[in-house]
Amino acid sequence: MTTFGPIFVPASLREAVSDEAWLAAMLDAERALARATGGNADDEAYRPELYDIERLCEEGRADASPVVPLARELRKRAPDAHNGATSQDILDTAAMLVARNACALVVAELDGAAAAAASLAESHRSTPMAGRTLMQQAVPITFGLKAAGWLVALVDARRRLAGVRFLAQLGGPAGTIDPEITSRFAAELGLDEPVVAWHSNRGPVAELAGALDGIAGACAKAALDVVLLAQTEVGEVAESGGGGSSSMPHKQNAAAAVLARACARLVHASAGVLTAGEHELDRAAGAWQAEWPALSAALAYTGGAAAAIRRSLEGLRVNADRMQANLTVEGDIGSAEALVDRALAHYRENAS
Amino acid sequence: MTTFGPIFVPASLREAVSDEAWLAAMLDAERALARATGGNADDEAYRPELYDIERLCEEGRADASPVVPLARELRKRAPDAHNGATSQDILDTAAMLVARNACALVVAELDGAAAAAASLAESHRSTPMAGRTLMQQAVPITFGLKAAGWLVALVDARRRLAGVRFLAQLGGPAGTIDPEITSRFAAELGLDEPVVAWHSNRGPVAELAGALDGIAGACAKAALDVVLLAQTEVGEVAESGGGGSSSMPHKQNAAAAVLARACARLVHASAGVLTAGEHELDRAAGAWQAEWPALSAALAYTGGAAAAIRRSLEGLRVNADRMQANLTVEGDIGSAEALVDRALAHYRENAS
Amino acid sequence: MTTFGPIFVPASLREAVSDEAWLAAMLDAERALARATGGNADDEAYRPELYDIERLCEEGRADASPVVPLARELRKRAPDAHNGATSQDILDTAAMLVARNACALVVAELDGAAAAAASLAESHRSTPMAGRTLMQQAVPITFGLKAAGWLVALVDARRRLAGVRFLAQLGGPAGTIDPEITSRFAAELGLDEPVVAWHSNRGPVAELAGALDGIAGACAKAALDVVLLAQTEVGEVAESGGGGSSSMPHKQNAAAAVLARACARLVHASAGVLTAGEHELDRAAGAWQAEWPALSAALAYTGGAAAAIRRSLEGLRVNADRMQANLTVEGDIGSAEALVDRALAHYRENAS
Amino acid sequence: MTTFGPIFVPASLREAVSDEAWLAAMLDAERALARATGGNADDEAYRPELYDIERLCEEGRADASPVVPLARELRKRAPDAHNGATSQDILDTAAMLVARNACALVVAELDGAAAAAASLAESHRSTPMAGRTLMQQAVPITFGLKAAGWLVALVDARRRLAGVRFLAQLGGPAGTIDPEITSRFAAELGLDEPVVAWHSNRGPVAELAGALDGIAGACAKAALDVVLLAQTEVGEVAESGGGGSSSMPHKQNAAAAVLARACARLVHASAGVLTAGEHELDRAAGAWQAEWPALSAALAYTGGAAAAIRRSLEGLRVNADRMQANLTVEGDIGSAEALVDRALAHYRENAS
Repeated sequence: MTTFGPIFVPASLREAVSDEAWLAAMLDAERALARATGGNADDEAYRPELYDIERLCEEGRADASPVVPLARELRKRAPDAHNGATSQDILDTAAMLVARNACALVVAELDGAAAAAASLAESHRSTPMAGRTLMQQAVPITFGLKAAGWLVALVDARRRLAGVRFLAQLGGPAGTIDPEITSRFAAELGLDEPVVAWHSNRGPVAELAGALDGIAGACAKAALDVVLLAQTEVGEVAESGGGGSSSMPHKQNAAAAVLARACARLVHASAGVLTAGEHELDRAAGAWQAEWPALSAALAYTGGAAAAIRRSLEGLRVNADRMQANLTVEGDIGSAEALVDRALAHYRENAS
Repeated sequence: MTTFGPIFVPASLREAVSDEAWLAAMLDAERALARATGGNADDEAYRPELYDIERLCEEGRADASPVVPLARELRKRAPDAHNGATSQDILDTAAMLVARNACALVVAELDGAAAAAASLAESHRSTPMAGRTLMQQAVPITFGLKAAGWLVALVDARRRLAGVRFLAQLGGPAGTIDPEITSRFAAELGLDEPVVAWHSNRGPVAELAGALDGIAGACAKAALDVVLLAQTEVGEVAESGGGGSSSMPHKQNAAAAVLARACARLVHASAGVLTAGEHELDRAAGAWQAEWPALSAALAYTGGAAAAIRRSLEGLRVNADRMQANLTVEGDIGSAEALVDRALAHYRENAS
Repeated sequence: MTTFGPIFVPASLREAVSDEAWLAAMLDAERALARATGGNADDEAYRPELYDIERLCEEGRADASPVVPLARELRKRAPDAHNGATSQDILDTAAMLVARNACALVVAELDGAAAAAASLAESHRSTPMAGRTLMQQAVPITFGLKAAGWLVALVDARRRLAGVRFLAQLGGPAGTIDPEITSRFAAELGLDEPVVAWHSNRGPVAELAGALDGIAGACAKAALDVVLLAQTEVGEVAESGGGGSSSMPHKQNAAAAVLARACARLVHASAGVLTAGEHELDRAAGAWQAEWPALSAALAYTGGAAAAIRRSLEGLRVNADRMQANLTVEGDIGSAEALVDRALAHYRENAS
Repeated sequence: MTTFGPIFVPASLREAVSDEAWLAAMLDAERALARATGGNADDEAYRPELYDIERLCEEGRADASPVVPLARELRKRAPDAHNGATSQDILDTAAMLVARNACALVVAELDGAAAAAASLAESHRSTPMAGRTLMQQAVPITFGLKAAGWLVALVDARRRLAGVRFLAQLGGPAGTIDPEITSRFAAELGLDEPVVAWHSNRGPVAELAGALDGIAGACAKAALDVVLLAQTEVGEVAESGGGGSSSMPHKQNAAAAVLARACARLVHASAGVLTAGEHELDRAAGAWQAEWPALSAALAYTGGAAAAIRRSLEGLRVNADRMQANLTVEGDIGSAEALVDRALAHYRENAS
């Protein structure tokens, strides 16, 4: 349903949050459950190609969950499957698997963006330009310092995501499953083990959403600066291969930065769904179900934002002469260079 | 990218907001432009099957717009196409065409929901039940009065949408096109004619978004009441064919109401994107592009909410005995019946 | 609790949404109730100075409502007061009275802003400047056309608010009061009469919130353009008496436009509270109570946005020479002048 | 401007985020600056009672900042004050000081709430009740397990806040100040030292906002459960001294839980302002200014949510007989007791 998806989101990320990816993750969860409970997990039953996610969704409408029909079909092939689990166990665990995979892709884009920002900071450590506050020239800075600001924000946003734990969910119908089983289940999947089931205490989801929103926000901030510095009247940067126009061939739009900003707005909206939830009693009647599309969207557009700002920064053409020519305010660049060095050191310390 | 779409959104609505539907609408806009400017509109060039929206999106990434490559291809077939227009003219007009079509589907579901609410209000005009405030029994009401409250909300939400105008957009690169041409263009498409171009003054989009959010909110309110009245300990209503569970065959979840609530949350998030926008100067660098997926999502999930609450209410089993048995507070039903009649009269006055 | 209120919101509006204003409105509602039910309304009991809203709030915490202690105190003076009403009747009616008063102030600021925009549109009907899309110069427009775009948006936002009905609320504990009484009550206060009580069907609140958000959005759009056109490198407009800086006396910030944008963000957030609500059964357990501060904030900051953009536009210094000098794209202004005339005609038609 | 503040927010927190508290914090920042730059910091000049924040705000409207007039007045008394700083340095640092103080109050309430949840978990470790999913009875749990779920959420939300760093801000007009000075400045105030200035890279603010929203969300979740379990038809818990009604003396509303939910909605809205920001270049023209009231509101209402749920849980009356009587589903409580023990151990490990 996402309009013009390929404009916003790289193919790998669209795949990583697709219904097919969710189906595969649900089956991974079911297989891990079988293993954790001593069931027959080697069964062929867990192969995604045996199932039709579209049809499961049609059928699942009656139950407000695709896992109800999935478990039914699965048990035809593996009669002891879905043993002790509730559909939310499978879906929440699948959500975390999907998120973990998608986040790896997000981080790869983010790392590319950070590397590009670092390179700009280094190359333009001493390139003077106007600092601008409330959109007015204030005092001189260097372009390296501006890029250093983006860099620190990207690094810290990445670090925030690195602190997010991807938790297994296995509580059974109302969260009373033996924690030993949950522990084995989590270990099977390489997920973290929760203290108790988090069926309706959604802190883990909110934390992930906040981290994604933080990444998208860091990308959008750099993108906004690119758009502003690329204005015709400013002309201090340009995207290489900047976007054209259907009616004005002379235009050189900062198309990638524009897309990063658009993606960030969409992440923010989805993050709002993932953080707003009061979930009723032991499983929510609406707030939980809304998480599925919101999580996919948050992941995908965060990746879109990161990929777009990476593209923008990697190819950014910096016009140092124009920066100098535009500079109408007096003063020196203060400690701009030393601050660039601090930012680069911070980047290196936090590199994976 | 929408996870488990068929669980939430009817097929007709998913189609109505699909990329293919947007493509067709863009081509309708281009054809109307050709007609409005005296171009060759009878050309075969405007058939959607000639274009590959996926590929246009891939190519459009460089320009942050699918219309740039579309116009390029279109002109190969119809050299005078896209004459005087900017890509935003085509996309905004397409957005309004898509919205108009989708809204018709939304309204059909909403009308069904309203009819079901009206029928419940009428049948249970005098069926006593507990009024509950802050989740405590307060004084008696009738179930008809509760349904009447839903009904008035649904009717008024529909009326609000009916007041939304679907505007053509044709301003050219920066909004200076001859308004006569815009007028002809709008007439070709049966859209309203704007006073001036609304490329970056997005009131019309915000109003539509608000109306959709209002509809979803009215649906979700009724859904919440269904969920609460269907609680095991209350048991005053049940959805027929209520949803099951993968682990607890005895359960009868109010699955449709649950989905209506989930959809409403997703609408609200998307509406936030569509109402938050400060759009820069004569075309926005991010806020506009974010509208495309947000609008599709808002339309689709509003339809999902309406379809789900319709399903819930159409099949609602009302347990009047349980309502009576639960009633622990004293008092009479006051003017509940007269108020039901007022609501039904309001409904009939506002029926299409 | 609003930080630095006087920076954002005119004194009259701060007063209009103050706790004291709410108290007075609650007492107006109680007095109207007394009249509508044949009680003793001439009593001195309804004078606000007899009550201490701070203390009522302290006491009201136990009941999650200031009306519970207020009604208690009121009845000491007017024993038949609060007859048949529930606390939500009084609070919702007071909310609508507060909103109506505050909206009058908002509209006055908005009218000032529209007049200023109209004057700019007229004076600069033919002043050429660059149209800018995605922040790049596109084709020429006139500054009058840009102002005309703001003007139409302000006019339409005002018209949208004009369509909002301020409804009385009088349903009694669960909405079953005789509609004749509600009718008399509404007439006493000059409020509209609802079909049925809207205690937990909050469409009327959502519609008001949407209209306020729409106004703030229209103000913020013009403000963003002012900020962008006032950039050092663009220099096409400046606020007269533009704000200074604590460290840079040379700076001329577009301070009023900046505040308009800040206010609009705060309106948007509050509007989100007012439109997100699923209210449980016959009175909500949380969503309703959250409306009180959100409504005050939405009203106040909408007024702040309108007052700020009015101030910005009323004193706007337009530098036509700079507009001409900046213009690097070729082409003519098309129908810009005719479109300005359309906008001005639209403005005059919709003037109060 | 906050309507009925004392209903929602404890007096200490209202004070902690008051304009007076911001003023004192701004002066603390100015004094620390004087010390860090070798100025005359012992001067009497920094006493808050010398300044009138209301008047500073009136004057500050012209500059969109209260620091511009404050610095002007301050320099009359301490001529070398505000040396090298920009108004945002002072305001951002003040924001962090205000936030640190307010968070201490929030945490105290949160600790109280956690202690109450722990006590409930312990006392009702083995008290059987119905687990309820999608609002239907599912399988038995214990009330201790439900309280354990709240407890873990509260503990983890607190832990998340503990990870938030309160950063000093001292960059000068555009972020080029010698980091040695910033380091001394931060040390004076006991704040963390940033890598580079974060004037327009707002990750630190977003992280704080996310943590507050997480706390409010954890409180609201417990509150929602209280409200649901306190329903007339369920009757498994009641707030001691539960709120009354202006018209129905028999009612026992879960007033504190209701307020916690209301507060959480208001936090969420404000957090949205604090996380949505793309800040332009080296200081934002609107997004930054909107942070001031949003931060105060987020802090205050988070404290309100924590205080309210604490009050609710501390006085919660648990009706174990009713829990047993309501239980219509079969099955045993599984590992509920062991899970309670895990939660309690987690609580103890994370206690301050």
